[in-house]
Amino acid sequence: MKRPTLLAFGLMLMPSLAFATEGNEANDMVWLATASALVFLMQAGFALLESGMARSKNALNVVMKNYMDVCFGTLIFWALGYGLMFGLNTSGWIGTGNFFLNSADGSTWGFMLFQMMFAATAATIASGAMAERTRYNSYLIGALVITGFIYPVFGSWVWNADGWLAKMGFIDFAGSTVVHSVGAWCALAGVLVVGPRLGRFDKSGKPREIRGHNLTLVALGGFILWFGWFGFNGGSTVQADEQIGLINLNTQLAASAGAVGTMLVALLSRRKILLTETVNGSLAGLVGITAGCATMLPGHAIITGLIAGVIASLGAKLLLRMRIDDVVGAIPVHGFAGVWGTLAAGIFYMDDPFNGARITVQVLGVLSAFMWTFVTALITYLVIAVTMGMRASPIHEQRGLDLSEHAEIGYPEFPVDTAYTADRADGMEGQR
Amino acid sequence: MKRPTLLAFGLMLMPSLAFATEGNEANDMVWLATASALVFLMQAGFALLESGMARSKNALNVVMKNYMDVCFGTLIFWALGYGLMFGLNTSGWIGTGNFFLNSADGSTWGFMLFQMMFAATAATIASGAMAERTRYNSYLIGALVITGFIYPVFGSWVWNADGWLAKMGFIDFAGSTVVHSVGAWCALAGVLVVGPRLGRFDKSGKPREIRGHNLTLVALGGFILWFGWFGFNGGSTVQADEQIGLINLNTQLAASAGAVGTMLVALLSRRKILLTETVNGSLAGLVGITAGCATMLPGHAIITGLIAGVIASLGAKLLLRMRIDDVVGAIPVHGFAGVWGTLAAGIFYMDDPFNGARITVQVLGVLSAFMWTFVTALITYLVIAVTMGMRASPIHEQRGLDLSEHAEIGYPEFPVDTAYTADRADGMEGQR
Amino acid sequence: MKRPTLLAFGLMLMPSLAFATEGNEANDMVWLATASALVFLMQAGFALLESGMARSKNALNVVMKNYMDVCFGTLIFWALGYGLMFGLNTSGWIGTGNFFLNSADGSTWGFMLFQMMFAATAATIASGAMAERTRYNSYLIGALVITGFIYPVFGSWVWNADGWLAKMGFIDFAGSTVVHSVGAWCALAGVLVVGPRLGRFDKSGKPREIRGHNLTLVALGGFILWFGWFGFNGGSTVQADEQIGLINLNTQLAASAGAVGTMLVALLSRRKILLTETVNGSLAGLVGITAGCATMLPGHAIITGLIAGVIASLGAKLLLRMRIDDVVGAIPVHGFAGVWGTLAAGIFYMDDPFNGARITVQVLGVLSAFMWTFVTALITYLVIAVTMGMRASPIHEQRGLDLSEHAEIGYPEFPVDTAYTADRADGMEGQR
Repeated sequence: MKRPTLLAFGLMLMPSLAFATEGNEANDMVWLATASALVFLMQAGFALLESGMARSKNALNVVMKNYMDVCFGTLIFWALGYGLMFGLNTSGWIGTGNFFLNSADGSTWGFMLFQMMFAATAATIASGAMAERTRYNSYLIGALVITGFIYPVFGSWVWNADGWLAKMGFIDFAGSTVVHSVGAWCALAGVLVVGPRLGRFDKSGKPREIRGHNLTLVALGGFILWFGWFGFNGGSTVQADEQIGLINLNTQLAASAGAVGTMLVALLSRRKILLTETVNGSLAGLVGITAGCATMLPGHAIITGLIAGVIASLGAKLLLRMRIDDVVGAIPVHGFAGVWGTLAAGIFYMDDPFNGARITVQVLGVLSAFMWTFVTALITYLVIAVTMGMRASPIHEQRGLDLSEHAEIGYPEFPVDTAYTADRADGMEGQR
Repeated sequence: MKRPTLLAFGLMLMPSLAFATEGNEANDMVWLATASALVFLMQAGFALLESGMARSKNALNVVMKNYMDVCFGTLIFWALGYGLMFGLNTSGWIGTGNFFLNSADGSTWGFMLFQMMFAATAATIASGAMAERTRYNSYLIGALVITGFIYPVFGSWVWNADGWLAKMGFIDFAGSTVVHSVGAWCALAGVLVVGPRLGRFDKSGKPREIRGHNLTLVALGGFILWFGWFGFNGGSTVQADEQIGLINLNTQLAASAGAVGTMLVALLSRRKILLTETVNGSLAGLVGITAGCATMLPGHAIITGLIAGVIASLGAKLLLRMRIDDVVGAIPVHGFAGVWGTLAAGIFYMDDPFNGARITVQVLGVLSAFMWTFVTALITYLVIAVTMGMRASPIHEQRGLDLSEHAEIGYPEFPVDTAYTADRADGMEGQR
Repeated sequence: MKRPTLLAFGLMLMPSLAFATEGNEANDMVWLATASALVFLMQAGFALLESGMARSKNALNVVMKNYMDVCFGTLIFWALGYGLMFGLNTSGWIGTGNFFLNSADGSTWGFMLFQMMFAATAATIASGAMAERTRYNSYLIGALVITGFIYPVFGSWVWNADGWLAKMGFIDFAGSTVVHSVGAWCALAGVLVVGPRLGRFDKSGKPREIRGHNLTLVALGGFILWFGWFGFNGGSTVQADEQIGLINLNTQLAASAGAVGTMLVALLSRRKILLTETVNGSLAGLVGITAGCATMLPGHAIITGLIAGVIASLGAKLLLRMRIDDVVGAIPVHGFAGVWGTLAAGIFYMDDPFNGARITVQVLGVLSAFMWTFVTALITYLVIAVTMGMRASPIHEQRGLDLSEHAEIGYPEFPVDTAYTADRADGMEGQR
């Protein structure tokens, strides 16, 4: 008699409990879907930032590369990349299953969507660095290889539970290395293959400034990227989770500190505080905190972001000295700050900071990311360069890729005075 | 003695359980509120897309139409539309209650907000098609009729549980037909009443290109619309739900495939790949998946999106041949792709694809949407045309509606060289 | 034997229950994180609105002030403001603890992040009013004082549970007074100290119009602010909550009614309906509903918003007559409409409307906000003016702050024709 009562009681409870549990899965999905949407919007941020930093004659070409990155990246990641990254990974080096996935449960679909947004981000990072002189079709083929192969293979080492770096305890919570550095090393390979823009360096190798055509859009792009990062970092819990509070607080603090870091560099070198540098400083802070946002105290997040901003600022100067033409600063922001952030995630690990063994694993992860990505991306771009050509013809580059590749121009009603710009830019040099 | 123990145990549990249940309703609201905000932002996407595709002299007028669409649409939907759509619907043809709703529970308020955002979307679709020559006040009265009457009445047939199409099993999960086609058929009626812009077709009826003034904003509008669609489709669960994963994955895949579909049309017809067409292709993919996003496998979502992109691209050419001047391509994107998407939702229905009876119901829904909407919108616009006039005077149209209707211009510091634009546009024709 | 059974049963249930409870805290965090991101994006909205309403020569300077507001505001609020606002508040007048907070639980971090976004908003409101003639460094020091001291101290009176206004039952759910009026009174103090822009008033004191350089960006800023407000108001529940439905519905209704209110003023005074006024009208509606959004019926929300729009429109004229140069209308929108909204929250209090005692408390809150904020902000700006100077030199102001403060210009390729603008603006005056 007790039993039936208990059972009745149990049964009475069951629906509620079942509902509560169902609710938890559904609520995890709410966060995952929200975060996926935020990460998606980062593509708009990249498009604005990169387009605004380019000249108006290439404004659409840059945007189109970002737009189609997402489209091709989405389809190839569904077909190929997801399986390589999250499929059965017995070797620890590559996933082998779930290609063209067409049957799964709700939470898997949600997870795939979130990861898809990340994959597209990696490819997009390269587009800005290589802007204004790379052929459209060639670029897109490179992006397909990144999203469909280079990125997911490295991802399978870290974010597939059976990956060899995952098993070593490599910490990269939301992808300072997996997404940002990988994107930046692809950008570096691409920029080396495609070479600097016409007129970027004079005959003695001194850089000649080329100004972006729409800096309010650059700032808007920065704001949108920052906004999206709350989904990028916070969403990497992949579930509703109290931890999101610390993660996104750290994200906010590091981004702010990154901009301040850049400002300090400008102040100390007695230069004007540029909007473009400031935006890049905050992005460097965001890249820097991405690896350790879930396992760092707020005070350390500020230090991480501040140093990331300084690194991005100095790194941009270094690249110029090496005569490397990275239009938007993607390599210092996503690459150099990504390396620092990955190390910082080890250094400031909350429960066990300054542990040499842990930091060594972080160094190993950073190095393996560079070696895998830079080499494969270099081969990819070289093959494309030899077979179909990476670089637009000089006449197309001078005319602008909008007209030559898309037969559309960004602002057809507004006359462009490039001579005026060039003069003004030269005249302003002295003031900095 | 057992009883008290059990009761005590039960009471001890009750608060937690009650809380958990409350939690579920609260969590449903979190998703509904998030999705409502995302759908709201689509208005910004429409405004940018439509304004950017217009000439700078009409840039503000287009934006103002979108802005006031939302404002008037919100108020009229609260007062009238919600009751017509979701009020007691004994006939199956129209709701009759809950007008000026001023007393309800939290979830009803949240539901009304979400539906309000949808209603405003339907009206906004028409604004782009009719841009650059429609009078501001006349347009807004049309928008009030759409949001307050035409849209909610059709909505009551499908999304009111007692609607006659709902009872027949018509599938339109998030509104390929209810929102997008309805908006497009209003646009078609409006465009026919108002006629093409001055100079859009030459005397022989050959279209003359009129270029949008700000294509980076067009791309940003496309990104924002895509972003908002995750709330539009995902939010149509109206609750926290694991299903959102599949819904939004399908949304992402179809949008990407739509852009690829448009690209294929351009490649096959040996034309340049335009940014404007590409953005419209992805929007067509989004419109196409809207009906079936919850009941389709990812592979089918890709096919649905791809075909939607092709349809939108070809449909735009068809309209030009019919000398119909749809400034932004709203009719092919929201109308033609909406029809296809609604059929696709029947054709690829997950548990029972290719079922003739189901597809027949879908055809019936599509036809009834066209007949109800096109006829009522045509009458509305004709009455407005006869009583107050729909079309701006030629002098206002030439001068631009910003100056004549609002006494403000978009970019007062930047001189506009329309002759230059026209020349450049003509010169580029040959290249496509 | 019963006991063990019961215990076993209890233990069997425990994990589920614990999970459900955990789930609720995690789900609260999902909403808080989402809302925080939305409020963050409002900074982009402010930046666009303010930059677009300024001339192109100051476009970047305005954006930079907004961008660094967030960065400095974030860091100072973590270090100082949070403790002043939410620390132990035995006096009821100021918090005294939790400075440089580096150890807390997840929900505290989430709460701090949300509040941090609010703090940055208050400072940003001042930037628009003081645009185009305020020195960059001086402005930022003022912003630090606002975010680190003025705002949090007033906040501790209302939103710290032990605050003296909180204990009196002052109603300001999401900050019509705490955030918006405080920002506006800082703006008023700043504008009085810095004076009007060169040429804003002629010798007889008649205002001379200075047009914003990019009104499509103004509209986009308006849309983004409106979007973010769903997090601002809805997020002020600080948890997943069914109430969000009513809160955000009221938000939507009041914003819409605010724009309509502004339109009515224009119609009645036979002026053209301006985009800038319309956007400000909807923002006034949003500011107005912010205090009472959780405790007002939808019908009253519409009235509140409508009146807020009228007040903002008339208030802008009043300021001009007083020769106060508020570039973007921040004082009427955030200040005057904020006062009205705070009173309306008392007048239309849902369960007990038109209660004189309650309205008296609201009046007291409004007055104390003005006295504390205006006086401290005035002192702050006067001290800055005397020590380092608030106002840019006339030559810098004429040349534009972008070039003189940042050595970058917004649109270097597009020649600017200011004479043309000025002529056009003058010519258009007569039409309004």
